Amino acid sequence: MTDVEELPTPSVLVDVDVLAQNIERMQRLAREAGVALRPHAKTHKSPEVGRLQIEAGARGLTLAKTSEAEVFAALGFDDLFLGYPIFGADKARRLLALSDRVLLTVGADSVEGARSLGAVFAAAGRRLRVRMKVDTGLHRVGVLPEHAVRMAAGIAELPGVELVGVFTHGGQGYGAPTPEEVAKVGRHEGRVLAETAAALREAGLPAAEVSVGSTPTAASAMTSPGVTECRPGTYVYNDRSQVALGSCREADCAMSVLATVVSAPAADRAVVDAGSKTLSTDPMRPVDDGFGAVVGRRTRVARLSEEHGVLAVEPGERFRVGERVRILPNHACVVSNLHDELVAVRGERVEGRIRVAARGKVQ
Amino acid sequence: MTDVEELPTPSVLVDVDVLAQNIERMQRLAREAGVALRPHAKTHKSPEVGRLQIEAGARGLTLAKTSEAEVFAALGFDDLFLGYPIFGADKARRLLALSDRVLLTVGADSVEGARSLGAVFAAAGRRLRVRMKVDTGLHRVGVLPEHAVRMAAGIAELPGVELVGVFTHGGQGYGAPTPEEVAKVGRHEGRVLAETAAALREAGLPAAEVSVGSTPTAASAMTSPGVTECRPGTYVYNDRSQVALGSCREADCAMSVLATVVSAPAADRAVVDAGSKTLSTDPMRPVDDGFGAVVGRRTRVARLSEEHGVLAVEPGERFRVGERVRILPNHACVVSNLHDELVAVRGERVEGRIRVAARGKVQ
Repeated sequence: MTDVEELPTPSVLVDVDVLAQNIERMQRLAREAGVALRPHAKTHKSPEVGRLQIEAGARGLTLAKTSEAEVFAALGFDDLFLGYPIFGADKARRLLALSDRVLLTVGADSVEGARSLGAVFAAAGRRLRVRMKVDTGLHRVGVLPEHAVRMAAGIAELPGVELVGVFTHGGQGYGAPTPEEVAKVGRHEGRVLAETAAALREAGLPAAEVSVGSTPTAASAMTSPGVTECRPGTYVYNDRSQVALGSCREADCAMSVLATVVSAPAADRAVVDAGSKTLSTDPMRPVDDGFGAVVGRRTRVARLSEEHGVLAVEPGERFRVGERVRILPNHACVVSNLHDELVAVRGERVEGRIRVAARGKVQ
Repeated sequence: MTDVEELPTPSVLVDVDVLAQNIERMQRLAREAGVALRPHAKTHKSPEVGRLQIEAGARGLTLAKTSEAEVFAALGFDDLFLGYPIFGADKARRLLALSDRVLLTVGADSVEGARSLGAVFAAAGRRLRVRMKVDTGLHRVGVLPEHAVRMAAGIAELPGVELVGVFTHGGQGYGAPTPEEVAKVGRHEGRVLAETAAALREAGLPAAEVSVGSTPTAASAMTSPGVTECRPGTYVYNDRSQVALGSCREADCAMSVLATVVSAPAADRAVVDAGSKTLSTDPMRPVDDGFGAVVGRRTRVARLSEEHGVLAVEPGERFRVGERVRILPNHACVVSNLHDELVAVRGERVEGRIRVAARGKVQ
């Protein structure tokens, strides 16, 4: 099979030239800012794409779950950060096994959580590298800056734990109404985290690693003085939300979904064979606007059921049964996670497959 | 591993006693109504669960996509209906291969679509069994009742096609505000489809198979005179939306998600390790109300990111880091599709695994 035209639908396409440009652009930003880049591999969950990021100069990869790290470690990746508050002895035993062959660092935002991991490492005569999560405005997980020194002291004194730094995620940038407001979130994210790290060091606590990250805020957060690392994820593929947020142009979106119009029952409605099990029901950010856009047309995917994408056909446009379209998805990271493999393309040529090796690894 | 307490989190649990009751209850309704039951296997995508449905008396299974049928055919299921408007010669060749070993029927709602399949069957000297989809109010796919005779005539005369009946899906029941309104949708669904079938027969067109279906409308639609088959899917597991719609009680929900509280950064906020890659972002029906409910508590999952479920902790409730909870998901069918296997449990005991064999089969 050599042409996109011959692919079964729906298929998730990744343009490898756009992918390479996205990887190089973010790496250049990090190089110019003088920070390490540690991409969040949740977006692709793929060894092929992760290797491109490492070859371009990334320090290592970021993941969330222990089972994701197990997949990437088995595939030869040797520097992994789990930016997630992992809990419990069972997970700790798996992390201990991983740390035999990987430079492993994990997140923590509670003394109880860090203690549950440290106890297992201490019993083995080892120490787990931990970065403390700081809440710089997303209000999801993380310690508030005003409580950071106290919690860091509690984590640092735990047996089996080596506190090595702090990290944050300025995810509130996804709700910012303009690119200027997104950049403001990024500057705040970088400044507050760097100040928190400085406060820890003043209190005699270790905080050498100061890590920010999200695709929209990456450029503005990584240039804050004191930041040492950035962890964007979505930039590698980009998506409709990143275009709306001003993170990229539509031409920078490497991922699209090839679909077939299977029904055209009314002038203002057509249905494609890509539903929520292909595109996901994730909303567009920063404002709701359907579930995807037809590339090169004004028509959007207005409703989704599991295997149906309902197009609200714009006046003057027409979709005939059997026609193939490409759809720009709202959120690339969850699209990857619905498929075992994506199709690597260069323009209209099929170049190969991208394995989503850590697909579904949530434990 | 024998206890739920020992499972890693997040894990998707299915209580096999509740599952058996759900299967038996729907089969009894169909038996009493004198119609065939052909459950939509999109909900479980699993041979183990499909076999339980067949053993209880189901006529066969319903699926949407060709690749789903290929999985179930390879596992020995021999009577499959693809309730979906499939298009094109490539898919038709796969359907032709399937029809060598399976009693196969597919949906169509356009002459162009049916022609694209029939051409391949005609060239092989075969005929594909086709049911025409009728739109009884969902306004997704399907021909409107007033155009049904004309389109059925166009489909029936195609080479390689054997028109055998009509089908519909009263999915608009998911938006009905009360159980009484849901039942009204079901009665309308059954009555309009039966009338459409009668009109076809009056015009000399074949319409012996008259198939309705959706979990909320099943009971009211299948009792309409003239209906011969019902295709509910979600009833097998049930979910929070079905409870809200009045289709079942919370005790009838076989599926729950076992999760761990990994962060409790504020009195009104706790975070579990089940995010949108475990629960999906599908909304609750018929009205939006978060992304899941904590079983036995008043607290709901108010926000989701990919690996975080943010609980909006109700006054008087408290969640501590490390605590395990069960979450009732909004939509069981998309939860199954995010996981390679579910865990079969009986109360607090682990009984085995349920393979989601057709997970991700969207083509």
